[in-house]
Amino acid sequence: MTTQAALSRLSLNQRTTASWSLPEAIKGCVDAGLGAIGIWREQLAEVGLDDACRLVADSGLRVSSLCRGGFFTNPAEAATSEAQNGEAIEEAAALNAATLVLVPGGLPPGDRDLQGARDRAARAIEGLVPHANELGVTLGIEPMNPIYAADRGVISTLGQALDIAESFEPNDVGVIVDTFHLWWEPGIAEQIERAGQRIVSYQISDWITPLPVDTLLARGMMGDGHVDFQAFTRLVARAGYRGDIEVEIFNADLWAAPPAEVVNTMTERYRELVRPYLND
Amino acid sequence: MTTQAALSRLSLNQRTTASWSLPEAIKGCVDAGLGAIGIWREQLAEVGLDDACRLVADSGLRVSSLCRGGFFTNPAEAATSEAQNGEAIEEAAALNAATLVLVPGGLPPGDRDLQGARDRAARAIEGLVPHANELGVTLGIEPMNPIYAADRGVISTLGQALDIAESFEPNDVGVIVDTFHLWWEPGIAEQIERAGQRIVSYQISDWITPLPVDTLLARGMMGDGHVDFQAFTRLVARAGYRGDIEVEIFNADLWAAPPAEVVNTMTERYRELVRPYLND
Repeated sequence: MTTQAALSRLSLNQRTTASWSLPEAIKGCVDAGLGAIGIWREQLAEVGLDDACRLVADSGLRVSSLCRGGFFTNPAEAATSEAQNGEAIEEAAALNAATLVLVPGGLPPGDRDLQGARDRAARAIEGLVPHANELGVTLGIEPMNPIYAADRGVISTLGQALDIAESFEPNDVGVIVDTFHLWWEPGIAEQIERAGQRIVSYQISDWITPLPVDTLLARGMMGDGHVDFQAFTRLVARAGYRGDIEVEIFNADLWAAPPAEVVNTMTERYRELVRPYLND
Repeated sequence: MTTQAALSRLSLNQRTTASWSLPEAIKGCVDAGLGAIGIWREQLAEVGLDDACRLVADSGLRVSSLCRGGFFTNPAEAATSEAQNGEAIEEAAALNAATLVLVPGGLPPGDRDLQGARDRAARAIEGLVPHANELGVTLGIEPMNPIYAADRGVISTLGQALDIAESFEPNDVGVIVDTFHLWWEPGIAEQIERAGQRIVSYQISDWITPLPVDTLLARGMMGDGHVDFQAFTRLVARAGYRGDIEVEIFNADLWAAPPAEVVNTMTERYRELVRPYLND
């Protein structure tokens, strides 16, 4: 098999190579023979949407996700959040991204009503659906490891994300299946099967111990931690997922390394730990 | 209401005042007017079981828990684990502890089969039941925050702990409801109601952000973080729990403070945030 075919479903999420600009990341993906890229809005803004769309089109890469919309949970920021999510939907449409990743947001300062925050997130997603539907964008709810429940993502399990997503058409609202966030979830096999065609992104990174000091940068390279990528990937494949596999690793050590080396390592780990199980 | 009545259900888990020996902790509880103490096996061993039983009896304190048994998941240590759990059951019986807290254990080195580890934990608990039953000890399964799923506790939700516990008589196997571990769990209200009389310990500490550097010492004093103690306590009370409320806070800053001050602060927070909701 050629390198290109072997890596055709591998995607680099820009957060894995944080020091690269969008043009650099696109070039890095093409040089490594990857099929897709996960783009972050911050780095997209540096280039501008029109130029970014041109760069992506010229590269031949798919956009496996646009990261990220969401942050719905603070009532004091509801108007800002709505406007930003509207812009994000338009960018996702222009880039033909497979999904717009929605990070729910955490508890507002001083607020301890977790269920209330979860309810606000669900309602905010409902509010975005008409716009997303009009532009053909599939929203992707990202359930996040409970380590982030207070300050980043109040939706903590795939089951909970599906409870929300299933109120909508699969083309409108799907779910992000991320190994770092979900590897521990009891009943995850049943939830991934339940998710089926709602899986709009399969993101991979490892859970490493001891957990790095900054929990936001606590993710590890596949194979360095405790996640069983073989079992997890098989579940996602059996659920019918045929999209890209996006490597998204927030890690200070990786960010300090030369990005092309990081891409090389992630490519090796993908070939060894993930790709063989994508068609089981 | 007298101080003594107001604090009659409050218990100091020894881990909250780690620098105190068992005799010092017992004296600290009595001086503060608490009704109970949660004892750790390491500090129990320093005194010896017979002397510890005498000290406890003389103090008039209840033993709200013995911490801890468990650590079932490493097959290479199965024989050691079984022997240690047997001793722990005998100690819990001698101390008339309300429960022996079982920490399931994490993944063995290099092992990524989380479900396998969970299954081993369930089988090991089954193996302990006859001995515990014979001595009148109630085993308490402690579901642990997923932050510890890899290295400490593979049972991650109250729902999962109950799935195991419900195979046994309530007098034999119950569950530990700990706010730090469970505050984020989707459907926690239904799970606490389901738990009912199986709740053998209500342990409290807060989830604080940013998470402290050492995740094992990441717990906060009630009121310093994101947990809604009013709502959580009401759920536990409505489920029928009438036992002690044990403050268990692993935190380096608290350990550096004078223990009597820590007990004073926890007492204030209990009066304000927990006690008013115990009889709702």
